[in-house]
Amino acid sequence: MKSILIIGAGRSSTSLIQYVLAQASEHGWTVTVADADPDLASRKVAGHPSGRAAWLDVTKPNDRKDLIRRADVVVSLLPAHLHIEVAHDCIKLKKHLITASYVSKEMYELGDRVSEHSLIFMGEMGLDPGIDHMSAKKKIDEIISQGGTIKSFRSYTGGLIAPESDDNPWHYKFTWNPRNVVLAGQGTAQYLQDGKYKYIPYHQLFDRFDIVDILDIGEYEVYPNRDSLLYRDIYGLTDIPNIVRGTLRYPGFCKAWSALVKLGLTDHSFPILQSSRLSYHELIEAFLPDLQGTLKERVARFLDEDMDSPVMEKLQWLGLFSRRKINIHQGTPAMILEDLLLEKWEMKPDDNDMILMQHEFEYELGGQQYISRSTLSMKGEDNQNTAMSKLVGLPLGIFVKLVMLGDIDTPGVQIPVDSKVYNPVLAELADYGVVFKEKDDLI
Amino acid sequence: MKSILIIGAGRSSTSLIQYVLAQASEHGWTVTVADADPDLASRKVAGHPSGRAAWLDVTKPNDRKDLIRRADVVVSLLPAHLHIEVAHDCIKLKKHLITASYVSKEMYELGDRVSEHSLIFMGEMGLDPGIDHMSAKKKIDEIISQGGTIKSFRSYTGGLIAPESDDNPWHYKFTWNPRNVVLAGQGTAQYLQDGKYKYIPYHQLFDRFDIVDILDIGEYEVYPNRDSLLYRDIYGLTDIPNIVRGTLRYPGFCKAWSALVKLGLTDHSFPILQSSRLSYHELIEAFLPDLQGTLKERVARFLDEDMDSPVMEKLQWLGLFSRRKINIHQGTPAMILEDLLLEKWEMKPDDNDMILMQHEFEYELGGQQYISRSTLSMKGEDNQNTAMSKLVGLPLGIFVKLVMLGDIDTPGVQIPVDSKVYNPVLAELADYGVVFKEKDDLI
Repeated sequence: MKSILIIGAGRSSTSLIQYVLAQASEHGWTVTVADADPDLASRKVAGHPSGRAAWLDVTKPNDRKDLIRRADVVVSLLPAHLHIEVAHDCIKLKKHLITASYVSKEMYELGDRVSEHSLIFMGEMGLDPGIDHMSAKKKIDEIISQGGTIKSFRSYTGGLIAPESDDNPWHYKFTWNPRNVVLAGQGTAQYLQDGKYKYIPYHQLFDRFDIVDILDIGEYEVYPNRDSLLYRDIYGLTDIPNIVRGTLRYPGFCKAWSALVKLGLTDHSFPILQSSRLSYHELIEAFLPDLQGTLKERVARFLDEDMDSPVMEKLQWLGLFSRRKINIHQGTPAMILEDLLLEKWEMKPDDNDMILMQHEFEYELGGQQYISRSTLSMKGEDNQNTAMSKLVGLPLGIFVKLVMLGDIDTPGVQIPVDSKVYNPVLAELADYGVVFKEKDDLI
Repeated sequence: MKSILIIGAGRSSTSLIQYVLAQASEHGWTVTVADADPDLASRKVAGHPSGRAAWLDVTKPNDRKDLIRRADVVVSLLPAHLHIEVAHDCIKLKKHLITASYVSKEMYELGDRVSEHSLIFMGEMGLDPGIDHMSAKKKIDEIISQGGTIKSFRSYTGGLIAPESDDNPWHYKFTWNPRNVVLAGQGTAQYLQDGKYKYIPYHQLFDRFDIVDILDIGEYEVYPNRDSLLYRDIYGLTDIPNIVRGTLRYPGFCKAWSALVKLGLTDHSFPILQSSRLSYHELIEAFLPDLQGTLKERVARFLDEDMDSPVMEKLQWLGLFSRRKINIHQGTPAMILEDLLLEKWEMKPDDNDMILMQHEFEYELGGQQYISRSTLSMKGEDNQNTAMSKLVGLPLGIFVKLVMLGDIDTPGVQIPVDSKVYNPVLAELADYGVVFKEKDDLI
């Protein structure tokens, strides 16, 4: 194998492209970076002798196939719903496919055909999902191989701003896809507690957060993800009585975000007519019941908050009570909110992001009860070389290399929960400082 | 024209079929009633000499087309999403099409082709939508033709149980499609108040009801429908500062329904795994946060209700705290709730339903300010011959007759807001007792 195709040169591609180009030099491979914006692709390749930039409109099947035909391994960084088209091409042209996105039902349905052709379609090979799967499954396999029984598995990840760059009342900045942050949690969160299913509707989700102690770092808020039940079987934890996956935020975030949800500002289901004629003041007013007082007083009463509460301070800081005009025309409430937050929550050039991940296991072994915690924390270098970009890009890049070298022999549509995959990837990640701190205690 | 095809012989078809069969006798037409259940179709035709029953699986395009080919006018009572297939057939075979459902965007997009062939595709020709459009538009046209300016239009409809048949604490029974009742209001309600858009997210909708006085009948609760803005242009009220359409319920209903929404029981977006292994008690528990006390105490605390409040009484009466097993396997919360309500809210054979509709206009005419109310109230005869069936079926039937007689000359995809349509339909409805009481007052 000689040639790698990376489709998409956006925010999350930097570390991946750097890693793969370096490997390409060493092994004599070529790397093509294709994007709808050829200048962006060129900047990411940056004249590297093993790289070339290509212009690609992914909606043009023939152009897409021409590029895929010339590659051995394809990495798709496209928005998740576009992977399936690339997947069909990869089956036809017999190419391996690697993504960092959740594997869709449609993708799993290609499993037989992918296996038949001895192809590797690896999904969820980034950070979350990705490193979370690999690190958790490694620990699970260790406990089970020792004869232990796992009673509880909780896994938390947060893409946060580093404390030294935290200079706003929300203690949050965008370190990855803003749209996903605005729409986070929509649906119904599902998890298992004491052997019973638990469900939290979206409109209550950010009110029903927990506090979690991140090893040697401090306390964070955590709200449950939508999908905690999906991984029981894949992790080999079919009968586990407690499983939850959650998202970490600094203290104070969840209650204030809940206020935005209650105000209706995260709704992405309908456009606000003529929204660019409205001010933020008028937008908020449109969602409020009839109450007396200034807008801020009415919002405080609607939310059952004191006028000077931390939640009200955060809303005020966003400028939601101001007479400034909205920039977006016919936008959904979520699009209007995203546009405002892009300005307010923008990383400055020297800002650092911070990734936190912690797995908590309770298990029984040899008649003793244990609690085990594995914790990863990593900071970025600046607003371009983020920890997020590194922790999404490195697992992808390492896995590309392993496939190119012929070191992977697990064909099919898959996620990284097989020791033949997670062992070499985690081993190389450790060389880049991606190391979990572990702590096992008797209960 | 000789032949009428009615597709669908369900709950809402009785009055329509009776009316059309009677007209068919008089005019020498034939009526085919087609349903997936041929026995049901036969029972509705009931041996009438002008009628015949047919078996139809609508998912079989050729069978469907064979029946449509032999008709001149087609009435589709299918679920709304299936009309579009029938519409395509009707264009190909050059047949008129009449429904009581909301006209979808896809249907409106057929407008040019429908007009080219001089076909009449009439939608929203039932009660709500249907009689509401016709009666409101007649009044609007009257006020405007006299030189008046309409400042406010509010329109309320309720499909209710008659007071003499009201024997449960919810003061509600199913008098039409139960699924639609359970999912009512999902999305975001949109209306206009004092020239400003107002939005109410679903999870607040049933908390933010108003009280409305129905002329000579009494006070009811009303919550806004999702779609109040859609009809401004169609009604010729483009610049009106106040417009809202709403749904009527007996006092006490909305707050209790809001409790079901908050508990998550109207969610139709995901299945409860192994739901038939759970009791209602366990289902409610799965949605509650961790609190102390009996289930009923926890629900009361979660909802901020007293243990013996009217809301708690209604929940208790439904059996939501009981250990009885759920009947539905892998059902969504909404399906499970619907199944329970089908039992609790079933009409008894002698029960009567009641339709209430009230339009309220505020307008200026000759320097004076007026408020005008038009009110319709009608009760059914028993649980089969409901007011709902009559008020959905009669407008459809009357319009079928007018088309068959060649009295309608407005081709295209349309709803009944043209005086050439609403005048003859309303005139004949009056013969059946469908008469609005009107009251005009100076403000």
